[in-house]
Amino acid sequence: MEFPSKLLENLVYNISQLSGIGKRSALRIALEILRKPREYSRDLAESIIDFKTQIKYCSKCHNISDKEICDICSNEKRDKSILCIVEDIRDVIAIENTNLYNGLYHVLGGVISPIEGIGPEDLKISSLENKVTSEKVNEVIFALSATIEADTTSFYLFKILNKLNIKVTVLARGIPIGDQLEYTDEVTLARSIQNRRPYENNISKY
Amino acid sequence: MEFPSKLLENLVYNISQLSGIGKRSALRIALEILRKPREYSRDLAESIIDFKTQIKYCSKCHNISDKEICDICSNEKRDKSILCIVEDIRDVIAIENTNLYNGLYHVLGGVISPIEGIGPEDLKISSLENKVTSEKVNEVIFALSATIEADTTSFYLFKILNKLNIKVTVLARGIPIGDQLEYTDEVTLARSIQNRRPYENNISKY
Repeated sequence: MEFPSKLLENLVYNISQLSGIGKRSALRIALEILRKPREYSRDLAESIIDFKTQIKYCSKCHNISDKEICDICSNEKRDKSILCIVEDIRDVIAIENTNLYNGLYHVLGGVISPIEGIGPEDLKISSLENKVTSEKVNEVIFALSATIEADTTSFYLFKILNKLNIKVTVLARGIPIGDQLEYTDEVTLARSIQNRRPYENNISKY
Repeated sequence: MEFPSKLLENLVYNISQLSGIGKRSALRIALEILRKPREYSRDLAESIIDFKTQIKYCSKCHNISDKEICDICSNEKRDKSILCIVEDIRDVIAIENTNLYNGLYHVLGGVISPIEGIGPEDLKISSLENKVTSEKVNEVIFALSATIEADTTSFYLFKILNKLNIKVTVLARGIPIGDQLEYTDEVTLARSIQNRRPYENNISKY
């Protein structure tokens, strides 16, 4: 693609470095920035720089934060005896949006994946061990994805936590709410039959 | 959506101001910026500011440019007797990418659209009249979209140009190359029957 301007070409190149955004979408975004008021492009550029240079990682849970200790870890009202282990910052945001969880988090920073060269030493596992032993944690919830890599990671962590005599739970796997049974894939369906529960427990969800 | 950081929230807000990018995509982009090296976020922010503050519009064709007169208008090798009228900068890029057109352009900046409150006075029409009368333009090509608004605009321009005794042509409408006949919509198919051409003329395209 040839561009009428070097400035445009530069911007399109930089935007298209983001995954999922091709040259065409990048051009559309660039021309939209051109149409918007000057304050917008200034705010956008400043928020990129501010975010990248000033963001911190919470020294307790490794979630991103504006402070040394994040709002969740420093919140006195949260239940410090429950720890939810997630892969990623986005998972924290997703669980927080349910408004159903009042414990703390631990962001692993990924899952064990030999193919991508990610081993246990690349994840925040030693700080998890320290936290679990030094603080009064009663329950650890595995809230990882439903993939093989995540299952491997869960099993690795389970072996460590089991030695420390801590209750370990995992998010329920099953048919998503609102889904039709006939369109559910067979692995999910099989797991949901194996893990069927007494009917009464289900009612409380509504 | 609640965010663990004000800096993140700001950035997500600014990114999601772009059309077609929701909060979720904006969050994905923000976290990707976080993962990328610091140079990237600096380059991205700088290219946004540079583009917005330094870009010029070519005083001849209204295309965007780094200079007062764009590379196409100032190129001695281009045929100055043909003028291609387009709505938008993106159309110039699209036509340039065909490598088939060697004339000049005129960017209207939109089409007449009473619903959106865009009248002829909002478009670059007077500068088109000036250019056509003062310079030796033999042919004007209408390269507007195939919409009612664009057709209205073409007709409006045709009435002006016809008085000036200039040859006016329009891009061929018909079945897109590679499309199957049965899936072509009936309006396009009807137009392509009405506008059928001698068979020999078609061969030269390949």
